[in-house]
This record gives sequence, C-alpha cells and structure tokens, in this order.
Amino acid sequence: MTELAERLRRAAETAGAAGLDALLITPGADLQYLIGLPADHHAGYGERLTCLVLRAEGPPVFVVPRLERPGHEHLGLDSLGVRLADWTDDGDPYATVASLLSGSAAASVATAVSDWMPAVHAYRLREAMPTARQVLAGPVLRELRMRKDAAEVAALRKAGEAIDRVHARMGEFAAAGRTEAQVGAAIAATIVEEGHARAEFTIVGSGPNGASPHHDVSDRVIEAGDIVVVDIGGAVEEGYYSDSTRTYCVGGEPTAEVARVYAVLQRAQAAAVAAVRPGVTAASVDAAARTIIADAGYGEYFVHRTGHGIGLQVHEDPYIVAGNDLVLEPGMAFSVEPGIYLPGRWGARIEDIVVVTTQGCESMNRRPRELVSL
Amino acid sequence: MTELAERLRRAAETAGAAGLDALLITPGADLQYLIGLPADHHAGYGERLTCLVLRAEGPPVFVVPRLERPGHEHLGLDSLGVRLADWTDDGDPYATVASLLSGSAAASVATAVSDWMPAVHAYRLREAMPTARQVLAGPVLRELRMRKDAAEVAALRKAGEAIDRVHARMGEFAAAGRTEAQVGAAIAATIVEEGHARAEFTIVGSGPNGASPHHDVSDRVIEAGDIVVVDIGGAVEEGYYSDSTRTYCVGGEPTAEVARVYAVLQRAQAAAVAAVRPGVTAASVDAAARTIIADAGYGEYFVHRTGHGIGLQVHEDPYIVAGNDLVLEPGMAFSVEPGIYLPGRWGARIEDIVVVTTQGCESMNRRPRELVSL
Repeated sequence: MTELAERLRRAAETAGAAGLDALLITPGADLQYLIGLPADHHAGYGERLTCLVLRAEGPPVFVVPRLERPGHEHLGLDSLGVRLADWTDDGDPYATVASLLSGSAAASVATAVSDWMPAVHAYRLREAMPTARQVLAGPVLRELRMRKDAAEVAALRKAGEAIDRVHARMGEFAAAGRTEAQVGAAIAATIVEEGHARAEFTIVGSGPNGASPHHDVSDRVIEAGDIVVVDIGGAVEEGYYSDSTRTYCVGGEPTAEVARVYAVLQRAQAAAVAAVRPGVTAASVDAAARTIIADAGYGEYFVHRTGHGIGLQVHEDPYIVAGNDLVLEPGMAFSVEPGIYLPGRWGARIEDIVVVTTQGCESMNRRPRELVSL
Repeated sequence: MTELAERLRRAAETAGAAGLDALLITPGADLQYLIGLPADHHAGYGERLTCLVLRAEGPPVFVVPRLERPGHEHLGLDSLGVRLADWTDDGDPYATVASLLSGSAAASVATAVSDWMPAVHAYRLREAMPTARQVLAGPVLRELRMRKDAAEVAALRKAGEAIDRVHARMGEFAAAGRTEAQVGAAIAATIVEEGHARAEFTIVGSGPNGASPHHDVSDRVIEAGDIVVVDIGGAVEEGYYSDSTRTYCVGGEPTAEVARVYAVLQRAQAAAVAAVRPGVTAASVDAAARTIIADAGYGEYFVHRTGHGIGLQVHEDPYIVAGNDLVLEPGMAFSVEPGIYLPGRWGARIEDIVVVTTQGCESMNRRPRELVSL
C-alpha cells in the first residue's frame, strides 16, 4: 500500500514536471500499477467510463459508475488518499472529469490519457474539454513502470520459477502422436498448477508451425523427430507475467542441420544476455544477437525484435529493437528471445526474462538452453 | 463467408456515404464482425499494429506484423477480396496505413478509427496523417452491427438456450453453506458444459452482496433464506454472447417484504419486454420498467439503465436508457434487466435478452421469471 501511495506521488510529480495538469487512466496495467485494481477487471466491459484523474496538484479522484462503486471498496483507496466520485447512467462522466480540472487555467489545461484507453473515451474526454491539450500518458508512466522495484522483481522471479517448473515437466506433455492443441491444454493446466493465477498463452509450434513465431496451437499431430517451439507464460497472483521459450526435439534426435543452426541461435541468445548491463542501449542488445545470426547467414530468418519489456503487461517498455537508444538501468526487465525460422520447415527460439542489475543482469529463467530431446 | 463480404461492402458504402475515406479497425468485436478474426485474438498483445484499412474506394487491406501473418492465413481473406500488407519490427506500420490512403486528396483525407482502438494507435495514426480528419467509426459500424441478420439471431438463440440450461441446473450449485466463489466456479464450468465456448462472467450476489449490481463473487458463505442474484453469460463458438439473470431464494422461503418488492420488479420487467416493438424508442422501454418501479416507491433503488445491446460484445448498442431516442427496428438485440437494490440488505434483478421482430420481440431466455426457491 505504501508502494502504491509512493507511485501515485511520483506519477503526479512526473506529470507536473512534464507540464501536465492530470493523467487520465482507465482500467488496465497502468491503473493496476497505480492503485492495485487488477488489469483484467472488466469494469462493465469498458463502455461505462472508469477513470483515475491523477492531478499534478490536489488529491487523485477515481471516477466510477455508481453501480461499480461497492466493488472498489476493498481497494483501500482512502488510505491512498484517493477520493471516489461516482456517476449514474443518466449522468455524464466526461463532464465529471472535466469539472475536476476546471480549477486549472481553463484555456491551457493539459491532460494525458493512458496509452490503452479506448479511443471512444479519449474522444469523449476531448469533447468535454475542447480547449485542453490531450497527449498520451505513456511517456510519463513508462519512466516509472520501466524501473521495477524490489517487490516487482520478486514477483517476476516467482513467475519465472513457476514457468521453469512447467518447462521441467515438458516430457509429460509433448510426445509424438499428440496434437499441439492437446499438448497446449496440458501445459495451460500445469501453468496454473505450478503457481500462476492464470495461464496467458501456450504456443506449441511443431515442425513447419515452429517457423511461425506467433503460432498458437493447432490440430497438427506431432511427429517423431519434430522440432517443437514451446513459448508459454501466465500471470502470478501479483499480476506480473512469466514468458519463457524453449525448443525441443520430440521423439528423436536433431539432424546435423538442426544442430548447426541451433548452435548459432544459442550463441546469439547468450551473447545478447551477456551484453545486458547498465549504460548500454536497448538497440545494442538487439544487435548482439542479430550480428551473430546474420554473420552465420541466417539474418533474413530472424524476423522479429530481440525482446520486449515485461511486468504487469506481457509486452511493455523497454523494447529491445534496432533504433531504440534507451539506455538500460538497474530494475529494467525484458525478454531476450532471438529466433531462427525456416519457412515451411522448422523454427527455433530461446527466451529468458532478465532484470538489469548494477553489474549486468539476473535471469528469471534457469532451464537448460540446449535443444532438449524428449 | 458471403456474409462477411457483404458486411465489408456495406461498411465501405456506409463510410463513403458518411464522407469518410476509410475505416481503420484494430482487433476486437468490430474486426470480428468484418473479417471473422476472433475478438479475443490477442494479436501480440496489441502493441504491434494490426489494422484493417477498409476504404470507401478500392479493396480493403489488412495490415499485420509479418510474424503474425501465417496466423491469418486460415481466415480466407483472399476470397473476401481483402489484401494483406505486412510490416517488420524495423518498419513503421502507421506509415504503411497512411500510404494506402495517399491516393485520396491528401489534405482532406477523412478516417474513422474503431471505438475500441487503443489511444496509442489512434495517436500514432494521427501523427502519420497530420492533415487528415480522424473521427470514431462507432457511428458507422453501429448502423450495421445493431441490426442482426438471421445467422446472428440464430447464434444469440443458441447462446440463450445454453444459458437457460445452466439456470435450470441452479439447484445443483447454489446451497446454504457454500461460498459465492464456490457456486460461481461450478456455474462457470457448467456454462462451458452446456454449450458455450467460454464462460465470461458469473455474478453470484447473496444477501447484502445482491444489492451491488456488478458484484462478482466473494468468499461470503450463503445463508439459509438468502436472496441470491445470479447473472451469468458466455460466448458460443460463433462469438455471440448470452447474458441472463435470475434471482433465487436459497434454503428458505422469501419474507413478505421480499415477495412484495419482487412482484414489483417482475411487473416492471414484463412491462418493459411488452413495450418492445419496432417504432418505439429505446428510452421508452427504459421508461416502461422505471415508471412501475418508481410508482411503487423504489425508484431510487433502481440505479442503472434497463438494458444494453448484445452480440459480439456483451455490451454494445443499442443502450436502453433515458435520453436514447433511437427508434427500435427488427433485428436489434438487447437485455431487459431492471433491478431493485436495497443497500446493505438484498437485491433482485430479472434479465432476458430480446430480439426485436416485425411485431414485437422474441425472448432468447425462457426460464421462469418468478423468484425460485432452491
């Protein structure tokens, strides 16, 4: 709770320093970060405005539909210094938000909306404050959310250990003769059994499907000798995600070509992890992996960025991608997940979540990174 | 498939008639309606732009991240006349969208974005087309989505029958001594067992919790004689939702006060359903329920609108609320769900989904509307 109060204080301060009068935050990871409302809370399916008005000056106000109000009483908003303002179906919640900002010099009010606010709410807020400037809140909140505190790193570590336990049991699930969908369902159940609050994704890409990086699962039956990409994750109780990929050879041994290409990938992933430390850019970590793969002649088959930040969202800042000059700092958490995808044939990916430390980084995932035969 | 092609054609035509050059549609119910991509498809968690560019003139183009491209091949976009354009992590998808519209008179391009597009994408699209006008696509798509065709009504009927079977089995789940959460978990499993692809919500509001309309479930143990509001629903394979509320008296008989208040509610719900026919306004249906409840002296305890549209979203147009002068037409589908909530004590709600017919309406839900003792 003290953490949330401190986050609210820092977000207000950062907004003020950026020349903003208020951040306007609808349900999602940003709101969970600030007041603890779970990001998957559906809040009436979103068409009724639920919005934290976090002002640079004055107490934060949480604007909610009256019929949702009782559901927010367990959040302990009082102790965070957040006031509740409710509205009914015959009222105008956008006018309520506007009235909370009318103390500011009206013609020059500057607001920032959550990056994930549905366009319909952003538009209605603009209509209610036609002379106000409206920008995205991402640049402000990114500065806070990108740097994980000790409790957040602990939650990521817990998630990483839980997903490692699922990979450790892969021999129970993946076998020739089973469909990807069957294997995926067994993995999803195990993700929960091993300590997540919910499973979020279970990519099981066998044979040619492994060459599609965001393949889900299919009714393809796994064949003996298939290379299978298994990319899985979920959220632990605290809302933080795991995300780890290992590639397996099921019911056989890899061919010489597979072994050769996989060795390139493993060197690339290790080099990228080794490149992570405070003071280097996100782009340089991407380059560390990409150079090795390109030098081996597979550059055109590594078709995505090297990684994404992770926390209360599966994908968030910082992105480990060419062109991102962001300088890494302790507490930043992201995936390092190069892949090589040979269209129509097979693919491979290795993914760990790492957190930047004062010296280098700590990996949240510890499973062997070799191509494991099951 | 023919239906989807027809929807695309009509959406483009309606957009053109509204003076728009293109609709820009990101994943969600709007996109499912137009091309069949399931609304729960996470599409890389949304930070990578996936966007249908549905032009008033010229073929629609689906802009997708290259690593997602293989996952879209089963959609049969070719046969819909939709072209694919992909982009890679070192590219700019917003510029890709802009280039598709550059044939239009550049200074006066008018675009409309999906109401549920995340603000970050709407902003980036605006930056990529700084001289273009950008409005919401809701007013255009609402005209199509609000009027369900025969296949959509069939899917709503299937969903309604499935949720009716769950309510019919309520005696298996709800009993004194069990927690709301236990009852909710059993209901969720049964929602799937009875023919939904997934359970979406299970509100079990017992005793005082029933007075909170959007209560979820809690660890409260149901007591003998409790009044329990059970509001449940899910999506069938086709993506359309069920949503039905019944109120039960568990392990006892209702008091005279409960019976009296419930009778008012039942009259109100029946009157609102009876008021539904082509040519009347949405507001008049709300008024039909509200007048009866207010006349009986409980107006202040009916704290929400009478209903919401339903289809590929649980909540969508038309909203059955004071001030909505929309005139009902055959094919419109919505809930009729008045409630009376006595804070700190108990609440009751009765909810059916109805579809407007040429003469009146057809109810998707047929379970008894009395207060059922379990």
